[in-house]
Amino acid sequence: KKYGSVWDPKTLDSSYDQLAALDTFARRHLGPSPDEVSQMLSVVKQGDLENFIKSVVPENVLVRRPLKIQPAKGYSESEMLVKLKEIASKNKTTKSLIGKGYYGTIMPPVIQRNLLENPGWYTSYTPYQPEVSQGRLQSLLNFQTMITDLTGLPVANASLLDEGTAAAEAMLLSYHGLRGKKKTYVVDGKVHEQTLAVIKSRASTSDIDILIADLGSDEGLELLKAKKEDVCGVLVQYPATDGSIGSIKRYIEISEIVHANKGLFSVASDLLALTLLHPPSTFNADIVLGNSQRFGVPMGYGGPHAAFFAVQEKLQRKMPGRLIGVSKDRLGNPALRLALQTREQHIKREKATSNICTAQALLANIAAMYAVYHGIGGLREISSRVFGLTKLLATQISENSQHVVLTKSFFDTFAVQLKGESADSFLARAVSDYGFNLFKVNDTTVQLSLDETVTKENLSGLIELFTGASGALANVTQLPVFSSEWTRKDQILSHPVFNTYHTETSMLRYLFALQQKDISLASSMIALGSCTMKLNATVEMVPLSWPEFGNLHPFVPKDQAAGYTQLINELEADLADITGFAATTLMPNSGAQGEFTGLSVIRKYLESKGESSRNVVLIPVSAHGTNPASAAMAGLKVVAVKCLANGSLDLADLAEKAAKHSANLAAVMITYPSTYGLFEPSIRDAIDIIHSHGGQVYLDGANMNAQVGLTSPGDLGADVCHLNLHKTFAIPHGGGGPGVGPICVREHLVPFLPTHPVIETSHTNSQSIEAVAAAPFGSASILPISYSYIKMMGGDNIQYSSIIAILNANYMMYRLKDYYEIMFLGSSAKSESAIKYCGHEFIIDLRPLKSLGVEAIDVAKRLQDYGFHAPTMSFPVPGTLMVEPTESENLDELNRFVDAMISIRKEIDALGNGESWGQVLKNAPHDLKDVVGGDWEGRGYTREQAAFPLPFLKENKVWPTVARVDDTFGDMNLMCTCPSVEEVSEY
Amino acid sequence: KKYGSVWDPKTLDSSYDQLAALDTFARRHLGPSPDEVSQMLSVVKQGDLENFIKSVVPENVLVRRPLKIQPAKGYSESEMLVKLKEIASKNKTTKSLIGKGYYGTIMPPVIQRNLLENPGWYTSYTPYQPEVSQGRLQSLLNFQTMITDLTGLPVANASLLDEGTAAAEAMLLSYHGLRGKKKTYVVDGKVHEQTLAVIKSRASTSDIDILIADLGSDEGLELLKAKKEDVCGVLVQYPATDGSIGSIKRYIEISEIVHANKGLFSVASDLLALTLLHPPSTFNADIVLGNSQRFGVPMGYGGPHAAFFAVQEKLQRKMPGRLIGVSKDRLGNPALRLALQTREQHIKREKATSNICTAQALLANIAAMYAVYHGIGGLREISSRVFGLTKLLATQISENSQHVVLTKSFFDTFAVQLKGESADSFLARAVSDYGFNLFKVNDTTVQLSLDETVTKENLSGLIELFTGASGALANVTQLPVFSSEWTRKDQILSHPVFNTYHTETSMLRYLFALQQKDISLASSMIALGSCTMKLNATVEMVPLSWPEFGNLHPFVPKDQAAGYTQLINELEADLADITGFAATTLMPNSGAQGEFTGLSVIRKYLESKGESSRNVVLIPVSAHGTNPASAAMAGLKVVAVKCLANGSLDLADLAEKAAKHSANLAAVMITYPSTYGLFEPSIRDAIDIIHSHGGQVYLDGANMNAQVGLTSPGDLGADVCHLNLHKTFAIPHGGGGPGVGPICVREHLVPFLPTHPVIETSHTNSQSIEAVAAAPFGSASILPISYSYIKMMGGDNIQYSSIIAILNANYMMYRLKDYYEIMFLGSSAKSESAIKYCGHEFIIDLRPLKSLGVEAIDVAKRLQDYGFHAPTMSFPVPGTLMVEPTESENLDELNRFVDAMISIRKEIDALGNGESWGQVLKNAPHDLKDVVGGDWEGRGYTREQAAFPLPFLKENKVWPTVARVDDTFGDMNLMCTCPSVEEVSEY
Ligand SMILES: Cc1ncc(COP(=O)(O)O)c(C=O)c1O
Ligand SMILES: Cc1ncc(COP(=O)(O)O)c(C=O)c1O
Ligand SMILES: O=C([O-])O
Repeated sequence: KKYGSVWDPKTLDSSYDQLAALDTFARRHLGPSPDEVSQMLSVVKQGDLENFIKSVVPENVLVRRPLKIQPAKGYSESEMLVKLKEIASKNKTTKSLIGKGYYGTIMPPVIQRNLLENPGWYTSYTPYQPEVSQGRLQSLLNFQTMITDLTGLPVANASLLDEGTAAAEAMLLSYHGLRGKKKTYVVDGKVHEQTLAVIKSRASTSDIDILIADLGSDEGLELLKAKKEDVCGVLVQYPATDGSIGSIKRYIEISEIVHANKGLFSVASDLLALTLLHPPSTFNADIVLGNSQRFGVPMGYGGPHAAFFAVQEKLQRKMPGRLIGVSKDRLGNPALRLALQTREQHIKREKATSNICTAQALLANIAAMYAVYHGIGGLREISSRVFGLTKLLATQISENSQHVVLTKSFFDTFAVQLKGESADSFLARAVSDYGFNLFKVNDTTVQLSLDETVTKENLSGLIELFTGASGALANVTQLPVFSSEWTRKDQILSHPVFNTYHTETSMLRYLFALQQKDISLASSMIALGSCTMKLNATVEMVPLSWPEFGNLHPFVPKDQAAGYTQLINELEADLADITGFAATTLMPNSGAQGEFTGLSVIRKYLESKGESSRNVVLIPVSAHGTNPASAAMAGLKVVAVKCLANGSLDLADLAEKAAKHSANLAAVMITYPSTYGLFEPSIRDAIDIIHSHGGQVYLDGANMNAQVGLTSPGDLGADVCHLNLHKTFAIPHGGGGPGVGPICVREHLVPFLPTHPVIETSHTNSQSIEAVAAAPFGSASILPISYSYIKMMGGDNIQYSSIIAILNANYMMYRLKDYYEIMFLGSSAKSESAIKYCGHEFIIDLRPLKSLGVEAIDVAKRLQDYGFHAPTMSFPVPGTLMVEPTESENLDELNRFVDAMISIRKEIDALGNGESWGQVLKNAPHDLKDVVGGDWEGRGYTREQAAFPLPFLKENKVWPTVARVDDTFGDMNLMCTCPSVEEVSEY
Repeated sequence: KKYGSVWDPKTLDSSYDQLAALDTFARRHLGPSPDEVSQMLSVVKQGDLENFIKSVVPENVLVRRPLKIQPAKGYSESEMLVKLKEIASKNKTTKSLIGKGYYGTIMPPVIQRNLLENPGWYTSYTPYQPEVSQGRLQSLLNFQTMITDLTGLPVANASLLDEGTAAAEAMLLSYHGLRGKKKTYVVDGKVHEQTLAVIKSRASTSDIDILIADLGSDEGLELLKAKKEDVCGVLVQYPATDGSIGSIKRYIEISEIVHANKGLFSVASDLLALTLLHPPSTFNADIVLGNSQRFGVPMGYGGPHAAFFAVQEKLQRKMPGRLIGVSKDRLGNPALRLALQTREQHIKREKATSNICTAQALLANIAAMYAVYHGIGGLREISSRVFGLTKLLATQISENSQHVVLTKSFFDTFAVQLKGESADSFLARAVSDYGFNLFKVNDTTVQLSLDETVTKENLSGLIELFTGASGALANVTQLPVFSSEWTRKDQILSHPVFNTYHTETSMLRYLFALQQKDISLASSMIALGSCTMKLNATVEMVPLSWPEFGNLHPFVPKDQAAGYTQLINELEADLADITGFAATTLMPNSGAQGEFTGLSVIRKYLESKGESSRNVVLIPVSAHGTNPASAAMAGLKVVAVKCLANGSLDLADLAEKAAKHSANLAAVMITYPSTYGLFEPSIRDAIDIIHSHGGQVYLDGANMNAQVGLTSPGDLGADVCHLNLHKTFAIPHGGGGPGVGPICVREHLVPFLPTHPVIETSHTNSQSIEAVAAAPFGSASILPISYSYIKMMGGDNIQYSSIIAILNANYMMYRLKDYYEIMFLGSSAKSESAIKYCGHEFIIDLRPLKSLGVEAIDVAKRLQDYGFHAPTMSFPVPGTLMVEPTESENLDELNRFVDAMISIRKEIDALGNGESWGQVLKNAPHDLKDVVGGDWEGRGYTREQAAFPLPFLKENKVWPTVARVDDTFGDMNLMCTCPSVEEVSEY
């Protein structure tokens, strides 16, 4: 009854205002209708939702504190769009020439419409299932190829979170590469402020000492030389943050010093500049990193953008992030796959060198497509024009004003020493009279960066601003040409992919063809446990294309970002409300970054209390791999806590370990509901134990979708949690990012939330930790998604997302439990204390079927033949599948999936009985080439059985486009750029 | 060289302003790069484009008058978007409650993004090839089913152009149904003004007398009775234009009178009202028509929207427009197809009962999806709320003001007699103080219609406007319920399709699944001769989603539509420039409507000269079927003119016929280049002949894409032409509409261009013909597409669209001519006078291959196996395929298509030689069910040969989703609504 009134307030709630708007959101977001809910309840043997939820969530956990979120009933979709426009209109789209890693750019409309705005691209998951992900794997391989070509280094990953964290990863790689023996990391003085801040925040939780040296000066170089034996690495920026390009000779000198001492030489660089300048390989850089934003991705008030990270071959297996590799499939055809991935964390745990999991796949794809669309010819036209305009402006300033251009050799950026006017007055005039934001270096110096979007009129305006003269360009139609010792001459981006899709028609078809190779939420449910693949509603996505959100530089004056400020403040408050905490920071741009942030905040808090010696963190063995990895990054010693056979925390072990490490206990990291998907009744006890030993409690909020409105980390007594907005709060997964990983904290931790070196955050404070991301509000431009998701569900109703998510999971579990063993249910469910219900996800245990000859991977791959993406495989338990349907799937779709699993169960029996058609599991998935052209002799099953095992598939099926990918071959033959035609034909 | 500088001005034109924007449009729109052009030129044995074009276009035709279009070099894409925003911002989005057939509505965002903004939907063609069109056929069948359910009539077509033309079609059907024996058509006095105007304009060129009678009054009924014997039909509007719902009894009376006299009873109605009101079948309507706009389609300043047209079974084979039917395929599976179509015109020529060709498929799909998404429950919630709000307002006015509500029983609309204030003053106050547009009935009466978008705040504002009291709704949360003798009680929209996709996730998947069944320009080239399937660029499409274009009612005061006015004026001027004429009207919403308009204008002109007796039009036998059909509609007598064996006009025959009919000669209709795709050298002679006999020359501009910037109807001496903006000027075909068919005329015809009863058009004049479409500027909201296409190509460069289109066609022709006979080339090409080059299209003659056992249809269907949509089949010559690649295809794609045709040629030989694998042609196309599950015994070819005859198909192929559709079965078993599950399973 209550659910009915949420689902359809007008007809099912007699107290509802009949004059209100009808396009309510909940019934579009939530899958099952009230009728379907009744049917499902009877399957799980419950009479109504209220009793159901009480049966699932332990009494001492089910808090149901009323939420303060307004409006309580939620905005309707059209009301939301009005509200969002109102907020957006408070942002001012003054043209920003601030630079500093963020630049105006033009996203080609064909890419905007058919990639950024296409759910076929943005709703897909990280390509863990390569056979149904060849489209985005291809695009990410293009990204890697582009990066290797532009940087001159042989291997590049498929994106990192931002330039700042990429630089921090470079530092850690340098440090760990020498096993921590050398503790000094040298950062050139001309690195972006925000990059330095992120480096510092990472270093602060480690043994690393940051040495800042102006390596362009002789004094700086001497400093390096003096320290060289303890230097694990050096980072320079090229071109530097003031726009200057140093001398080749000097870079080579630095490089030689570092290398002579076994350190790594890292270079932060700019992709557009690299189309014209010699690549960092010229001076033997080991790592090149940077931001690919200006390849078509809006500034978006700071993010999301894809950072890149390229390395020399010797480092390829230590590289953070995900690497796409070329392998082959069962039939010997070339096939792409994730060659290195988060998996490493699950295996290496706290010894993993990086905690990166979610990255920036969608943005990497946009940047790659930008290069595919322009080709090197087009890119060089753009960069040459940018340089030409910049040079023209600098010349005009030098020749026709008293101001002094400070930067001598530059690509797109220079600083100007002002004469006769203060920087503040000049900047104010630039905004009010000319509509430009420039960057303030100090009270007498400003700086600016030109970009692709600068028009001839803009340039005229700038000249007038600096020289007072108008009409300087009246007869100018030629631009200075970039030509210096730096001019790059090698052939790059010569692979056909960068030379084929230069018309809109061909690009459109390329985008469509790739997208059609992949399973996304536009094709079928993706029941990935721990990943919460819910609806990413159109209304939520629409603002992403608005210039009022897209065109803001992260460093604009706050009064130009009043809309963002409002939205950020409201969202922070709503998330704090939901988690039961005092405050939120939205800065971390992934769950893993949230973990690091939360732990850093805890450390700083402990330090403030004089308890810096507390450095032990307890982590259950079942935890996600990012937990120990983040803990290690935060400088904590990981102590594993056991789990019981039923998946719950082993409280006795917890108590014992906590007691043992009492003096040094910093924290515990717990996922709730557990990574097994269960609401453990003893959570409060666990929390009490930790607190009694002076530790802090960190709750991993990946499973928040089971809690919203029902309980919360704060209500349970925890101190801090991170959230994955890209799970519970409707941000699409984008094929492997973007994400947002805010943390919410209890009152005592608020003073330690991160600050930012350029822009004041909501929490800037003398005790704040340094920035954990390059941009002050992380991936700001996607925050409207979570904001509107929360505001449309409304404070009263958002709990139904959790309730229905839990019902959907239990319904599937109940339908499947006679066919498969469900972990912690099955046999043990017969005893009194047994768990009868799962949370929002459950685990199918396939290990008992091993005796029939089947492995978890066979089931996962066979599901593709049924048109489904596999659930999460072998996490948290090897040999299992973890199923999480989310609230957005309706009964039809749940049934389709269940029917597929039941049908597979029959195939497993056939395999076990030695019936030949059981082989269909081993040969799965069956791609078109196999089904149509494959050798069918002696298969023991028909093509129909392979491809259309259930009738609905004849009408509508997504095909795997390669056969089962050979991981072993791929691991042994890492190949991570686009193969040439010859290479492909070798197979 | 010249082409290079268009294609890439910055690097290939040294005189180009290097400071200008780089995102130029031409190189994205035009397929071949300069290098590819060189390669292609050598294949067609030409050295450069200049000489090539001179060799193709006869000297006396190639005029190359410089165009005045500004900017001459074209806007860049980003400049265009800035300019369009500037124009858009001149439109004011005051909330319009004007009604009169146009209402505010909410397009569900999931439909906007994944249908309206999805090239997979909007770039497809009319579903003539059903095997690769099942997706949109399904959606159009949903539309038909929805219309039959709501109207209560058994058969509905797949849309008409607008409500006005639908009403005119109803009149013609009534008239022709009685073979013209009864000449009076009675129109109720309460029909929308614009509907009446369109009826009058149609009647004016026929023998029909329009009798306007207020059939609600007894006098009106008496008038009908008095005339009844000469009455071929009656049209009433229900609810009427003043919002009133008459009495059932009266409608039955009218119906009985009409039927007793063998006439047809037509009802114009409103879909939203019909969710609550008894359907017109209740009073035995024969035809029900109306506008489906308010089912989710923006008002768009008048269009495009899909009109609907439903009939009793006896009329189904006479119905205008296209009808989707359920048939079965070669393998006996159910399959949809176009059951009735323009084909009828090609066969019946001037005896065709309607000239409708392009309709409103895309808009019909949106309206259908709106119903699919809401279901009858959702629709009734919407209509009940609209009624409730309307009733509440009327009650407030009656009770709390002196004004008098004139309309007694209503659904959403009522008129108010104002007391103490003039209508003008009241309306002005409504706009300025409350932000509402209402409708002015007369100096003391206003009228308003509420709709789905009206909020509670809006209603408060309206109450305050009428009563002066604020806060009237403070405690109101309940709405009056619609309940009257009219309340509908039958079960409708009970088909599963209207009860399955009510969540966003399920709707998203439905939209994706349907779209993936279809070939569109997003998959591969669609080389449909005469249809010009060029790029529909994203920049051109973007403004369609802007509220500043979408939310304008066509009858808003002109000062609220200043942006539209500017855009319309500029576009009219540019089109006049391109065609070499004096003026343009954009009112006709399809090419066929343009034809009718042009001929009507000619008739009116002749009449003004006292030459009304001129009523003969000469039309070559090769003309498109719409030409004679339109001519007949315009009351002209069609005299056919022969063509020579080489496809050219038979000048001697033309001269003879012109002389013979000299006294009565009204006009000639010529397509140029001819429907055979050839630039006939004698065109000026033909024109002179007609003029010398006092006739006017009408040029069918369907082939304008071969002329732009090279020659023009005006330059050649013609008097009027229509254009298909949905061909030459980049409006997407939308799967069978929308279209825009403006006409351009020479000075002497300008005074006769159409007027509009409500809004002054650019050409309103005492001599103007009546409106030819319901909206004053036709399908205004899609005009930004053509506008920006022209403005981005630029006056100097747009000719290259034509030149490259011609080159692409000739390249293909040259590559194919050794494999197939090309009409008018082949053998005759050897003689001196032979034509060596085609225009922008060419005809492959398959009749000579009949002896090998192959039919044109086999080749067309086999092309689907190669992933291609077939070229135009059997028009203008039976047994042929007409290929038109357009300028937007690049060399790769042309080659892929040519390679496919050459490969098919080998299959034809195999068939001819009796090799068994030749049967692959006869069984084509091969859908997945066939290839995977089909019986393969004795096929003589492999599954691979069936599905992957060329290697590229393994990587990327669009599959037909049914096997060859059985037309005969479908013709014999017309079934035009969604089949029930039982019916489907019968097959
Ligand atoms: C339990 C858990 N913790 C942490 C994370 C890390 O989040 P992210 O991928 O955003 O870094 C995940 C993500 O998959 C997770 O499932
Ligand atoms: C030569 C010719 N004339 C007229 C038309 C009719 O245009 P429309 O479909 O817009 O009514 C067509 C369209 O296919 C055509 O090819
Ligand atoms: O991405 C995950 O590893 O869950």
